[in-house]
Amino acid sequence: MRLSIEVALDYQFPAAADVLLAVEAAQLPDQLLLEDLLTVDGAGPLRPIAGEDGVGRRTWLRAEGRFAARYRATVDVDRHGPPLDRLAASPLRELPATVVPYLWPSRYCEADRFEAFVERRFAGLAGGAKVLAMAEWLRGELAYVPGSSDTQTTAADAFVARQGVCRDYAHLMASFARAAGIPARLVSAYAWQLAPPDFHALVEVWLDGGWHLADATGLARMDGIVRIAVGRDATDIAFMTIFGEAQMVSQSVKVTRVGE
Amino acid sequence: MRLSIEVALDYQFPAAADVLLAVEAAQLPDQLLLEDLLTVDGAGPLRPIAGEDGVGRRTWLRAEGRFAARYRATVDVDRHGPPLDRLAASPLRELPATVVPYLWPSRYCEADRFEAFVERRFAGLAGGAKVLAMAEWLRGELAYVPGSSDTQTTAADAFVARQGVCRDYAHLMASFARAAGIPARLVSAYAWQLAPPDFHALVEVWLDGGWHLADATGLARMDGIVRIAVGRDATDIAFMTIFGEAQMVSQSVKVTRVGE
Amino acid sequence: MRLSIEVALDYQFPAAADVLLAVEAAQLPDQLLLEDLLTVDGAGPLRPIAGEDGVGRRTWLRAEGRFAARYRATVDVDRHGPPLDRLAASPLRELPATVVPYLWPSRYCEADRFEAFVERRFAGLAGGAKVLAMAEWLRGELAYVPGSSDTQTTAADAFVARQGVCRDYAHLMASFARAAGIPARLVSAYAWQLAPPDFHALVEVWLDGGWHLADATGLARMDGIVRIAVGRDATDIAFMTIFGEAQMVSQSVKVTRVGE
Amino acid sequence: MRLSIEVALDYQFPAAADVLLAVEAAQLPDQLLLEDLLTVDGAGPLRPIAGEDGVGRRTWLRAEGRFAARYRATVDVDRHGPPLDRLAASPLRELPATVVPYLWPSRYCEADRFEAFVERRFAGLAGGAKVLAMAEWLRGELAYVPGSSDTQTTAADAFVARQGVCRDYAHLMASFARAAGIPARLVSAYAWQLAPPDFHALVEVWLDGGWHLADATGLARMDGIVRIAVGRDATDIAFMTIFGEAQMVSQSVKVTRVGE
Repeated sequence: MRLSIEVALDYQFPAAADVLLAVEAAQLPDQLLLEDLLTVDGAGPLRPIAGEDGVGRRTWLRAEGRFAARYRATVDVDRHGPPLDRLAASPLRELPATVVPYLWPSRYCEADRFEAFVERRFAGLAGGAKVLAMAEWLRGELAYVPGSSDTQTTAADAFVARQGVCRDYAHLMASFARAAGIPARLVSAYAWQLAPPDFHALVEVWLDGGWHLADATGLARMDGIVRIAVGRDATDIAFMTIFGEAQMVSQSVKVTRVGE
Repeated sequence: MRLSIEVALDYQFPAAADVLLAVEAAQLPDQLLLEDLLTVDGAGPLRPIAGEDGVGRRTWLRAEGRFAARYRATVDVDRHGPPLDRLAASPLRELPATVVPYLWPSRYCEADRFEAFVERRFAGLAGGAKVLAMAEWLRGELAYVPGSSDTQTTAADAFVARQGVCRDYAHLMASFARAAGIPARLVSAYAWQLAPPDFHALVEVWLDGGWHLADATGLARMDGIVRIAVGRDATDIAFMTIFGEAQMVSQSVKVTRVGE
Repeated sequence: MRLSIEVALDYQFPAAADVLLAVEAAQLPDQLLLEDLLTVDGAGPLRPIAGEDGVGRRTWLRAEGRFAARYRATVDVDRHGPPLDRLAASPLRELPATVVPYLWPSRYCEADRFEAFVERRFAGLAGGAKVLAMAEWLRGELAYVPGSSDTQTTAADAFVARQGVCRDYAHLMASFARAAGIPARLVSAYAWQLAPPDFHALVEVWLDGGWHLADATGLARMDGIVRIAVGRDATDIAFMTIFGEAQMVSQSVKVTRVGE
Repeated sequence: MRLSIEVALDYQFPAAADVLLAVEAAQLPDQLLLEDLLTVDGAGPLRPIAGEDGVGRRTWLRAEGRFAARYRATVDVDRHGPPLDRLAASPLRELPATVVPYLWPSRYCEADRFEAFVERRFAGLAGGAKVLAMAEWLRGELAYVPGSSDTQTTAADAFVARQGVCRDYAHLMASFARAAGIPARLVSAYAWQLAPPDFHALVEVWLDGGWHLADATGLARMDGIVRIAVGRDATDIAFMTIFGEAQMVSQSVKVTRVGE
């Protein structure tokens, strides 16, 4: 599926501030980046930095006054992996060094606190089938309520509150998977047909020696996902991190299918 | 200074479990590893994995029944950096991709919650001088009380409780530094003259384009520190992570100075 | 059922400290106190204070050095209320002033955070039937694990950890009930056949204009419960609150049935 | 000082809901209530309930659709107690039964977690002088920032964040006092010259056998305070507790001095 992505970020910076942008689509085997362009008005020279595993290009810049970033990309998504429930867990002692940290708890994913729950609730399942059961449990037990969480909300908070947005679902998925010894990381993405259109958050789990997408919200099709960045949780993958003060003026994300 | 390190870890595993060991000293310009040897009884084939920046060699193994790990090393420590307060902060937009994550909050370091405190308390200071002031503040305001914290204790918890152990001091140092826009990471280490002898935890801060050690506990000399692993917080640098059940039988760490 | 209660509390106070003891059985219509006696060695003059609703006699004293408290009581328990599921919820606007505070969240019962969960999980039920469903849910989803919680553990913590002791079950019961608009309070009690013998914690819920016992642990029979004190949560009903330092030397609670 | 109080609360209730109003000024020796009147449109019969110690009259009602409550009162405030620093702490073992609960931690006042901080920071002080030092510390270390906290914010959260509103200052004052063995309760009040005009929150501490006002915000004069309700923390003293859904249409509080 060929997708066209258009992002417009308009902000006002009362004083000069460093900004880290992470809006650029990743070039990956299952998402072929045909062309893309990031332009920024109202900011100093852009300094790109590489992401991890080729995912997560970011751009440092210094903004002041009126700030306008535009990003356009055309991407061919061709994602035909085996269904998740056919994938086996990788033995822990075979995990590569770069994957190990995704077993650990993080700021918003207190995986260590969910061990008893996960062991009991998803007993008898393993690998991808276990991950699917986790996603189903979350879809059944949580309500998707815009505005119900904020930047302080952790997985444990959302587990108690039984409501959240995509970021909370992803934090819980990652926490459950890690608690079961399955490495999991957060993914920021563009998602076709997401309503309302916005940046999306989901997870990747490490199964059968590779990373595989999973989304507990059920709000997006996996063949319409274009990954941007990966990380331990929401802070790592924020589309814009501002080291200072700024006011949003307007912001839009559009993902449309184009004829092939 | 030449140091000899001897570690003995004796555990009992009622059932087979994967274990990740992180006890091996790092080979670094300021700590020359002359020789070292890790031997493990009661565990399957050892699988070493590399650390980050050459720090943090780890070993995967599978343990069952009686488990005995021994590690011996001889290290020349020659650490003569400039004093911390001569080091300047690096502009955020010049941070390398691998350093950026050490700006983020993590499981035990809720850096985002300390921003107002740090801005107010350490106003007017920058770079290494600011980091030193943070270490002094912690030494003055916290009491080092063995047993006062546990594996759930976060930096914010210790900030309220005003007591902790080396791990808590390090979590607070890292949180304060990150809240001030200075990348900081936890370091596990062997420490000469630490009393009682044990694994130690301190931090590294990114100043003037490099990582520099800092220790808020004041319990160890910087020229007697041998780094083992680095990471976002205590979970990343645990000397032994057990994915299953185990009982400690005995455990000892010895660091002695040897004639040169 | 006639029960004999014997309590022995032996502590060592390195320095003089105020102590609040709450070990005396309450005189209530469903538990007739035939005789009781509290004696304390190693403490200044005892100053009794009344409890709430006739429940929760407490005694202030000042202890120093060796401290030995003994409490003996004989109680006839005759508790024949209607089964909980026959009791209706009281309209909120008819609650007496003294009952209203038991609708609020408290230190260990974050009732406000459980509203969505309670509304969803126990939908369609009301009054005593709802309370019973809460107790069954807790019995099914939590594991009773001695030592799994500590004095900092809140209802939300135990909800995530899915394990706890009687105090945690009671905190969750009270939180769920309050979240559903049913006043609930913690109760400390002596419990016949509790194994191992100890002080017990359970709850009372306000239904049909009165307080009624409920116990999610399933560890004790309601006709063998002798209430001591009531309060918002564990701190209010502690059997001994020490304002200073003390070491426990030994402690025992015995509840035996006596011929009638 | 004679004060005139006018309150207007306009809300919209999409469905019938029980409401507990606590806006009526208390009749107390130091605040003589000359006349007052509560009128409510859009609600069923009002059911008044008494408060504690004569403080905290509340009114139950059932609201639906458009809801308009008006409260008017004229009060003579004549508050001439000794300065706080002349008041001594009461020995714990002399505290009345009704005062004891104000020693305990509560939902928003985790007094138990502040013991080491309080012992160290306010060492050498006692009674009212200690309370004054606590208020000064809070005024110096916290920033009053409207909107910086929400209904979930506890004293420990505000202690870390170093900012808050009157409710947070009061939670911290109460937590500190309780941690020092001084009973403390939250007080909702009308405050003359408070800017912007609103309901105010402060504390009362138990010294020399009585309750005495203290306010860490420094935003209101003690001789212009008219108490409404008292309780363990913010939930107990909320001016309106809605058991259901409602939208605020408008709300105003006016406190003016009138000629005497």
